[in-house]
Amino acid sequence: MDKRNLALLTDFYELTMMYGYFCKGKHNQIATFDLLFRPFEESSFCIAAGLEQAIDYIRNLKFGKDEIEYLRSTRAFSEDFLQWLANFKFSGSIRAVPEGTVVFPYEPLMIITAPIIEAQLLEAALLNIINFQTLIATKARRVCYAASPASVLEFGLRRAQGPDAAVYGARAAVIGGASSTSNVLSAKLFGFEPKGTHAHSWVMSFDSELEAFYAYADIYPDNCLLLVDTYDTLKSGVPNAIKVFDYLKSKGHQPLGIRLDSGDLSYLSKRARQMLDAAGHSDCKIFASSDIDEYVLISLKEQDAKIDIYGVGTKMITSHSNPSLGGVYKICNIHSEGVDHPKMKISDNMRKMTNPAIKTVYRLFGKADNKAIADVICLKDEKIDSSQPYTITHPVERWKSMTVTDFYTRELYEDIFVNGKLVYKCPDALTIRSNTLANLETFWEEYKRLLRPHIYKVDLSDKLYELKQSIIKKERESIQ
Amino acid sequence: MDKRNLALLTDFYELTMMYGYFCKGKHNQIATFDLLFRPFEESSFCIAAGLEQAIDYIRNLKFGKDEIEYLRSTRAFSEDFLQWLANFKFSGSIRAVPEGTVVFPYEPLMIITAPIIEAQLLEAALLNIINFQTLIATKARRVCYAASPASVLEFGLRRAQGPDAAVYGARAAVIGGASSTSNVLSAKLFGFEPKGTHAHSWVMSFDSELEAFYAYADIYPDNCLLLVDTYDTLKSGVPNAIKVFDYLKSKGHQPLGIRLDSGDLSYLSKRARQMLDAAGHSDCKIFASSDIDEYVLISLKEQDAKIDIYGVGTKMITSHSNPSLGGVYKICNIHSEGVDHPKMKISDNMRKMTNPAIKTVYRLFGKADNKAIADVICLKDEKIDSSQPYTITHPVERWKSMTVTDFYTRELYEDIFVNGKLVYKCPDALTIRSNTLANLETFWEEYKRLLRPHIYKVDLSDKLYELKQSIIKKERESIQ
Repeated sequence: MDKRNLALLTDFYELTMMYGYFCKGKHNQIATFDLLFRPFEESSFCIAAGLEQAIDYIRNLKFGKDEIEYLRSTRAFSEDFLQWLANFKFSGSIRAVPEGTVVFPYEPLMIITAPIIEAQLLEAALLNIINFQTLIATKARRVCYAASPASVLEFGLRRAQGPDAAVYGARAAVIGGASSTSNVLSAKLFGFEPKGTHAHSWVMSFDSELEAFYAYADIYPDNCLLLVDTYDTLKSGVPNAIKVFDYLKSKGHQPLGIRLDSGDLSYLSKRARQMLDAAGHSDCKIFASSDIDEYVLISLKEQDAKIDIYGVGTKMITSHSNPSLGGVYKICNIHSEGVDHPKMKISDNMRKMTNPAIKTVYRLFGKADNKAIADVICLKDEKIDSSQPYTITHPVERWKSMTVTDFYTRELYEDIFVNGKLVYKCPDALTIRSNTLANLETFWEEYKRLLRPHIYKVDLSDKLYELKQSIIKKERESIQ
Repeated sequence: MDKRNLALLTDFYELTMMYGYFCKGKHNQIATFDLLFRPFEESSFCIAAGLEQAIDYIRNLKFGKDEIEYLRSTRAFSEDFLQWLANFKFSGSIRAVPEGTVVFPYEPLMIITAPIIEAQLLEAALLNIINFQTLIATKARRVCYAASPASVLEFGLRRAQGPDAAVYGARAAVIGGASSTSNVLSAKLFGFEPKGTHAHSWVMSFDSELEAFYAYADIYPDNCLLLVDTYDTLKSGVPNAIKVFDYLKSKGHQPLGIRLDSGDLSYLSKRARQMLDAAGHSDCKIFASSDIDEYVLISLKEQDAKIDIYGVGTKMITSHSNPSLGGVYKICNIHSEGVDHPKMKISDNMRKMTNPAIKTVYRLFGKADNKAIADVICLKDEKIDSSQPYTITHPVERWKSMTVTDFYTRELYEDIFVNGKLVYKCPDALTIRSNTLANLETFWEEYKRLLRPHIYKVDLSDKLYELKQSIIKKERESIQ
């Protein structure tokens, strides 16, 4: 799809800072940045997504003639800097959690180590790509959780925030659990089966609803799903659909069912189910769409609505109830003259403080049940010896601790780039969806429920905690 | 930017319907569709935006080999239909309101008249493009209204819903009133001046904040805006900025000012203003960012915060408080065998009913003050004689009417495509912003205020009202 040059998809300040590093001769200092999110009201955890597009962005990151010419025209940069840009190719290393991984606040989704001038350049576009897809995969996880055992189709193209949001949002929705999408371009790019039948305009373009239904059945006899709410769902749509299903079956075809797109979905689905069953069409499914999100789904389930498949549009593709994930990209280390200098953002607000140094995250699983117990954010070279009892400790309230036995660990990261070379092969989106489901399977229901889920422990190792405290202390002292 | 082929940026059902029309030999029937939005909780009116990208989409709409091959692989279509697609070129006519126009619910933003197979194809992509940009221009109008007289910079790239949302969202934000953007690609594409200075990482990459500030001032002596909240705004950031500003002025340069990015913006801006003024830097401006939207701006204004320029990111670029505009694309007429057949969507919900027939909209202005009085949605060939008193009537509650004198009218639409030929030249985005401001100038403050604005009258002509009632009556009778 993408022949766009996205090199300028960046905030101007990234370029002015890069130029600043360049002018000060600091540009080859090796810096490490964490891409992470802070606690997200919408969900206690996220489903990581967008890595494939982040990789594409980095691989294709080149300043062509057109880009250089434009930057020259801003008069903010010197010729030798523009020359440096013209020769730019990413030379750093990146570790990341694979897409489909359950991730928690403060756990880096990506860890970028590169000359500071390069790492800085990536900030805005990486955040843009990862924030959005992770947001939508997370929302889709919630929607699919609420819909289960009914399945969810992604229908949001027309309300998505632009073409990319539609295309990559559909991808992220599938990663989060949707079974497919109506979006043909997304289906083509990512190997989904595109879904859909007809709209009200099809019905309205004929003299009668029945004529429109027969015409559709005629063309798609084995794929016949009829939208029944153009005029009146129960008085007109369902009775007409039944006539057409009778006809299709008499010709040896199996109709799919009906789609409800307005009105009270609970009431209409029950009545329609009765009417279909009474007419001998128990094998015909009921699809429903119309402003659905996880909260509507919970309510429909409570009412025992008779819906087999949901089409979910606006509310999922925009993550309507909270349309942004506040991912940030924070420097955590500078390596200069052979020494690491751990860095952190200090704030009066504990939630806004970042964790210093190059880190990793271990997830601990119970040996008996393969369920996740806790995550531990550590310094990069720390190991957890699972042959010994291990004490995990709350990241702030250190008196809260718990000792774990009979566990094994898994590190969350994979190498993506090593010294500029791509070493990771992205799975396709449907494989990622399976990985998501397998990942979710390792978490107890108590963590996954939508309302006030149990708090999963994400702790800091003693070494990281002590490093953090020492930096805070030093900074506070220097300001007093 | 855009070399993508967006022909498949469509819902699968558009293609199955197109194939249906094709199979039934109905595909050359001339249909008219309205693209309109229903009442939008977020704002009583919208600022139309996205037309330029809608036009680009239509002009470039071609099914290449790759697209045809993919559609063949779905096994849903016949070879002669695929051949038809391969030869497709839009042959219809489109009228639209120019970008930057104040538009109200039920007023078509675009009116598409074309063979039904062509008009159907455009639905999903046009909605995607117009919904998003109109949403953001509308949000930006609100943000800028609340910020005024302070100006607003668009800063939302990292939280936008994908690259397109960032690039076109920045365009829409400028159309809605933002003065510029931090997004370099958007600035390049649409002729804005990209804005930005440095981030916390700049400060943290130096041994001290003061060193970082001096370094920045050294490189950008005439464009020096310093971010003062990395460690402690009032104890460290502002005092260090003042030292650097003293230095710059001693060298004959004029520093721009400081940027606040966290904490209590009202308190910090007042204290920082005092500190800058006391140090002789009354000419240095205070920029502020940090989760700002129109409601925060109203509160800051009430508190007399000393902020000159706002950077607005997440909340504007996603229209956070309501991230989707529910634009729809509804068939309103079919022309067959020389006769118009007006169509409308019937619903139990009056708000969901559309207006039948090919229409136009007149805006009535008072001759004395050039202020908008009301809009009237009419049948396409109706005229309003402004030399006579004219009675406007509520679209539903017909007993509510008002007679207008001393007015003139303006039709809201321009011809965009005529029989497949583009006849409209898009103004550039900065010109559109001027048009938006001029358009807003014709509305009383009572309509523009953010909280419970006065209801602007959008009425239906008698002829359109009567046609609508007759269709509703006929449909209801046919269902009983």
